[in-house]
Amino acid sequence: MTDNFADRLLEAVEAKGSPVCVGLDPRVEHLPEDFQLDCRGQTAQAEAVRLWGRELLEVVAPIVPAVKPQSAYFEKLGAPGVAAYIHLVGYAKKLGLLVLGDVKRNDIGSTAEAYADAHLSGPGGADAVTVNGYLGADGIEPFLKVCRAEGKGVFVLVRTSNPSAPAVQDFADASGKKLYEHVAEMVAALGDGTGLVGSRGYSSVGAVVGATWPDEARKLRRLMPRQIFLVPGYGAQGASASDCAASFQADGAGAIVNASRSVIFAHRDKQYAGMDWKQAVGRAARAFAVDIARAVGKA
Amino acid sequence: MTDNFADRLLEAVEAKGSPVCVGLDPRVEHLPEDFQLDCRGQTAQAEAVRLWGRELLEVVAPIVPAVKPQSAYFEKLGAPGVAAYIHLVGYAKKLGLLVLGDVKRNDIGSTAEAYADAHLSGPGGADAVTVNGYLGADGIEPFLKVCRAEGKGVFVLVRTSNPSAPAVQDFADASGKKLYEHVAEMVAALGDGTGLVGSRGYSSVGAVVGATWPDEARKLRRLMPRQIFLVPGYGAQGASASDCAASFQADGAGAIVNASRSVIFAHRDKQYAGMDWKQAVGRAARAFAVDIARAVGKA
Repeated sequence: MTDNFADRLLEAVEAKGSPVCVGLDPRVEHLPEDFQLDCRGQTAQAEAVRLWGRELLEVVAPIVPAVKPQSAYFEKLGAPGVAAYIHLVGYAKKLGLLVLGDVKRNDIGSTAEAYADAHLSGPGGADAVTVNGYLGADGIEPFLKVCRAEGKGVFVLVRTSNPSAPAVQDFADASGKKLYEHVAEMVAALGDGTGLVGSRGYSSVGAVVGATWPDEARKLRRLMPRQIFLVPGYGAQGASASDCAASFQADGAGAIVNASRSVIFAHRDKQYAGMDWKQAVGRAARAFAVDIARAVGKA
Repeated sequence: MTDNFADRLLEAVEAKGSPVCVGLDPRVEHLPEDFQLDCRGQTAQAEAVRLWGRELLEVVAPIVPAVKPQSAYFEKLGAPGVAAYIHLVGYAKKLGLLVLGDVKRNDIGSTAEAYADAHLSGPGGADAVTVNGYLGADGIEPFLKVCRAEGKGVFVLVRTSNPSAPAVQDFADASGKKLYEHVAEMVAALGDGTGLVGSRGYSSVGAVVGATWPDEARKLRRLMPRQIFLVPGYGAQGASASDCAASFQADGAGAIVNASRSVIFAHRDKQYAGMDWKQAVGRAARAFAVDIARAVGKA
């Protein structure tokens, strides 16, 4: 018997007291100095990322319910980087963290099945992954098989946090409905499928909704009542905690906010100057968790 | 001085006499029997894929101008699979093939830069990759930097070949314009950027246009006169050579058609029964190349 992903995530959020997630974006050039020694070539860099990542996960594990490793920075380091990604997914799970793999994969049929196998399935797979819905249900359903069978989840890109998001996602039909709302309806319908909605009423099919668009987030909250929103854009991308709050239900549930750079590279921030890097990360993670918990009435 | 990708691709098509591309989708369970011996575990499977892939590339290199490795099947084999992917990208280039990496990556800002570095840049990078345009220009421009600097290309998903493609891509505005046409206009505009259009008038920013939608392909051909179309859907997915022809200009240029399973796993096809697997692949590749060349008036 496998637990439903949405249930597991919401339970973890309650246990830690804040709906937040730390993004693991290992830009080698931003790692603390110690990890930059002898750090030439992909193998050495991937090893540095692996060691740094383990220590980072140990720091944040008591503070936050989930982490979101960003596959791109690992892939940049070739096969050794991918090995480090897989290692850190496993280590995070061992530390009791939920892992939301930010891979934004998308393809169809058996190719999408291969991606689901690669990134979601089995003991080495993440708890959930991000997927891109441009290909329609064919691109998402193969992932849902694994979600059902193994208690995993997906977050479908609905409204991304970047400045040019409206150029595609605000494309509107004759009634004024925009593409991101149309995609939201598809996500809501897919998420209602058999075996996906947990005991708390949320689906294992979630949505990515950028914090930089609070008005859109409020509309999406109504269109996708059963979706957990994964909310990027806080901190470095300019969104405030109250912008993030727009993605939550009135009871303060239903979303999880991500911060990457502002937490994991806190040692580069003036306000933590002179502090040990792990101390800086811990402080920044706690400040982030409190800021979001307060904004959604949970602290 | 780096040659423009579009020029390189069109030149390679002329040299080989047919605008075709062979897709490398290494489903381990479909490999010829020899490669299935002692093939348990990711490392052994990735090694089988690497050896098979090398021989396959040697068979098709004299026949076709390009190959399209599908990242999903390699990722399914973990870090050893990614190492095999990178190896085969390099080996294909060494054999004089152009490599179109089917990775469908998409992200923004420095994350998209990391993907472009990972998959397109440097001597180990593919000649071009597929990208998903749902995030708007922010998701594509970081790739274009590498295209300009290193003579590489991208193919943006415009109209995919799968049955549920219309559910998202046919979303229409008040004038009847559909999302895929809107994305096509974005792709055409991005592709006209400085340093991207080659001496033959085609851009290094191409488009993925499924062969299964010939009417849409004809419309897209008008909307994107400077784009090279990468055309999936021939063979196993049901499109005929004349369906594919809809993606070409009147002079028979401007597109490249992909076939995967029907060529690389030809040894599983009844019509090649009893034949050595490499002989079967060679025959199927030649038949495919001739079928497409004829349909576009080049043979």
